[in-house]
Amino acid sequence: MEGFLIDVRRSYRAEALCVVQPADTSEVSDVMKLCHERGIAVTPMGGNTGLVGGAIARTEVPGIILSLKRMNRVRELSLVDDTITVDAGCVLADIQRTVADADRLFPLNLSSEGSCQIGGNIATNAGGVTAVRYGTMRQLVLGLEVVLPNGTVLNGLLKLRKDNTGYDLRQLFIGAEGTLGVITAAVLKLFPAPKATATAMLAVASVDLAMEVLGLVRSAFGERLTSFEIISADYMDVVLRNVAETRSPFIERPAWNLLVEITDSNGDADLAAPMEAVLKTALERELIADAVIAQSEAQAASLWHLRHAVSDAIRYAGPNMSHDSSVPLDKQGVFAELTYARIGARFPESEVLMVGHLGDGNMHIVVLFKPDRFAGREDYMAASEAIDLIIDAIVVELRGSITAEHGVGLSYRYRLDRTTEPAEIELMRAIKNAFDPKGIMNPGKILLPSSR
Amino acid sequence: MEGFLIDVRRSYRAEALCVVQPADTSEVSDVMKLCHERGIAVTPMGGNTGLVGGAIARTEVPGIILSLKRMNRVRELSLVDDTITVDAGCVLADIQRTVADADRLFPLNLSSEGSCQIGGNIATNAGGVTAVRYGTMRQLVLGLEVVLPNGTVLNGLLKLRKDNTGYDLRQLFIGAEGTLGVITAAVLKLFPAPKATATAMLAVASVDLAMEVLGLVRSAFGERLTSFEIISADYMDVVLRNVAETRSPFIERPAWNLLVEITDSNGDADLAAPMEAVLKTALERELIADAVIAQSEAQAASLWHLRHAVSDAIRYAGPNMSHDSSVPLDKQGVFAELTYARIGARFPESEVLMVGHLGDGNMHIVVLFKPDRFAGREDYMAASEAIDLIIDAIVVELRGSITAEHGVGLSYRYRLDRTTEPAEIELMRAIKNAFDPKGIMNPGKILLPSSR
Repeated sequence: MEGFLIDVRRSYRAEALCVVQPADTSEVSDVMKLCHERGIAVTPMGGNTGLVGGAIARTEVPGIILSLKRMNRVRELSLVDDTITVDAGCVLADIQRTVADADRLFPLNLSSEGSCQIGGNIATNAGGVTAVRYGTMRQLVLGLEVVLPNGTVLNGLLKLRKDNTGYDLRQLFIGAEGTLGVITAAVLKLFPAPKATATAMLAVASVDLAMEVLGLVRSAFGERLTSFEIISADYMDVVLRNVAETRSPFIERPAWNLLVEITDSNGDADLAAPMEAVLKTALERELIADAVIAQSEAQAASLWHLRHAVSDAIRYAGPNMSHDSSVPLDKQGVFAELTYARIGARFPESEVLMVGHLGDGNMHIVVLFKPDRFAGREDYMAASEAIDLIIDAIVVELRGSITAEHGVGLSYRYRLDRTTEPAEIELMRAIKNAFDPKGIMNPGKILLPSSR
Repeated sequence: MEGFLIDVRRSYRAEALCVVQPADTSEVSDVMKLCHERGIAVTPMGGNTGLVGGAIARTEVPGIILSLKRMNRVRELSLVDDTITVDAGCVLADIQRTVADADRLFPLNLSSEGSCQIGGNIATNAGGVTAVRYGTMRQLVLGLEVVLPNGTVLNGLLKLRKDNTGYDLRQLFIGAEGTLGVITAAVLKLFPAPKATATAMLAVASVDLAMEVLGLVRSAFGERLTSFEIISADYMDVVLRNVAETRSPFIERPAWNLLVEITDSNGDADLAAPMEAVLKTALERELIADAVIAQSEAQAASLWHLRHAVSDAIRYAGPNMSHDSSVPLDKQGVFAELTYARIGARFPESEVLMVGHLGDGNMHIVVLFKPDRFAGREDYMAASEAIDLIIDAIVVELRGSITAEHGVGLSYRYRLDRTTEPAEIELMRAIKNAFDPKGIMNPGKILLPSSR
């Protein structure tokens, strides 16, 4: 069972009676019926790549872990409908490859795509590096098959772009982190495959200048802008130091690195010349200090490697706390400033690293400490709590989100509770109670145990 | 009060104590608090353009009509965030114009855009002629301000592209037709303004051939395909006969007319040459019989006039029943065939007219009868019920939706009830009960009165 008990960040250890691995939806239904009858807690698990403990079983009375990994069939690929219907246990990268072979794109793109499963991606409304163009998982699902806590199967595997038959239950399961039912299959939207790509890395001096570059790029490329990522100098240093086969494309060390990708489904589209023109304008206006355009797929891949290496880079770098915030785009500069200033004032010995999806407003903050900084777990937790409070205050002030794409799980329940209007929490509790009156479905996630 | 009592199709007449027209959100909240205290039913109304009676007050005990029309301010336009924040009572066309002046696009495009209000568009998850590219209203809303049935204001006017803080209450209000709360304001997503457009009308012999044309167009234009509409020959005849300034661009009368629009935010993009190439290929492969490409904005507008005139065309054409179905794209041909065959067999004296958004799978069926066909209302209702049963059976068989974009309102409650799994209806009732335990919020819509 060991592989099902520890999360990828090694922050939590589960306690469970057993791991159940059903082969199909009817077996999931049987398992849920039995557990519903006996009042046994069920924690669904996909690829176990979640960063907030949402799939880690930690219930008052140990229950079962329901792994979807054996359910990994592609049920149907419809090129006329531009849809693929998949079991929840399909690995994201496998889906990407299957549709690429059929000259289509499934645009969700995450660092964990080699092992995360689509059911988990849906349950957590995954985001990633292409949301600026394609949105998050919520925009990429047309239909869902869900097993309810009492074992009833809702067959909503519809391939429809328009469907207004009452309340949208599908959207409610998306992002509910397995607390309302078990997602067993989904119909996903496909897009035209990109046939022309331009990838560039840019050196900029500030987030405000990066936002001006974003404006330029959007004017020039419109709907073709696919990724607009940012990495701070300090974070890039940690990547270059700790991860193999990483090399900065710049001679001078920029305060911020921007990674920009433009794609077009028209193979004849000329993206290189307009990209050069945009960068020339940006240089002339002194918005950027330097820039490189990838001249081959290999060069593009090595620029992307710098971006995707950020998680590996901090794994052994020292004790750290990582955050997943979004704020409006017109507040990105002030968000970075306030974060540096307030965490720097409280923890001058820390390094504040930033990496994010600037194009969609989602910035990840990592606060990194020296290996010997904390005497023990309690000491670490106290610092972590102080940092949470600092970031929460900034996010609330700027009308942002304390968890942009990672979800709530176990990690952010207290932060959700204290930053959300009580009326909203009450509605969430009422929904939970309506779907799962016995409270057996992934209990203890998202909402704090109710005192009622 | 008269203008608030009759729906645009003149199918329903409301009964209400009064019309309340609040000036802002806090007045809406006060009204809801009072009604909640006294148990008075509240029916919210936007532009009164709904086609299923969703905004028509028909409650057991007369309540009030809550008109949002005085709340019509633009609260904020953020070009950095590509968002506009608007009061619920803003007219769709006014929003389109405001953002066009700022070189942006709000893509929702409906025949009723000159009078429908954005709050109603959101409450009904409106679709229209651009959903093939931009999705329905559900994909176009980032944030919502909602007044709950008890008067509590949920301020969710966030400008965020990523936000995973618990259950997505916003998505639940979208499409709930005002039965869970009153939408008072919204943050809408904006897109790059189109700078190049190609519009063409094509003559095709069958829906199956139209689907092959769709495949060709998608291969050639990918993400640039903005509209792909279809009008049957019989429906086009009714348009040409009944609406001023309409003229078919074809010499021969085609079995089906396709209206295709491609747009690009890049003004230098050449769309005309590839459009000609696609049409040439389609002609050579005998997929189409004829085609015209608009040579000016005026020509494009006159092609669109044929499409947008379909509602006016049947207004005085005779007694009719109109439907709003979607089926998967790979079932469009068989859907049209079965509909013609089964309605034709049962009502050989009727004309079955079809118009729809073929690119997103949404077909509108209008069954038109001679003016003197029905002896009275009962006779008409019996035929209407028989046609409902025929279409519902086909839609269920093909895994489609009985109400793709119009919603349920008063008109489709029985059809929703009999075509939906009981478990889903139960969940909808539980949600309704959680949000509106006193049942004062637009009662009698979507769900049938419960026997419980």
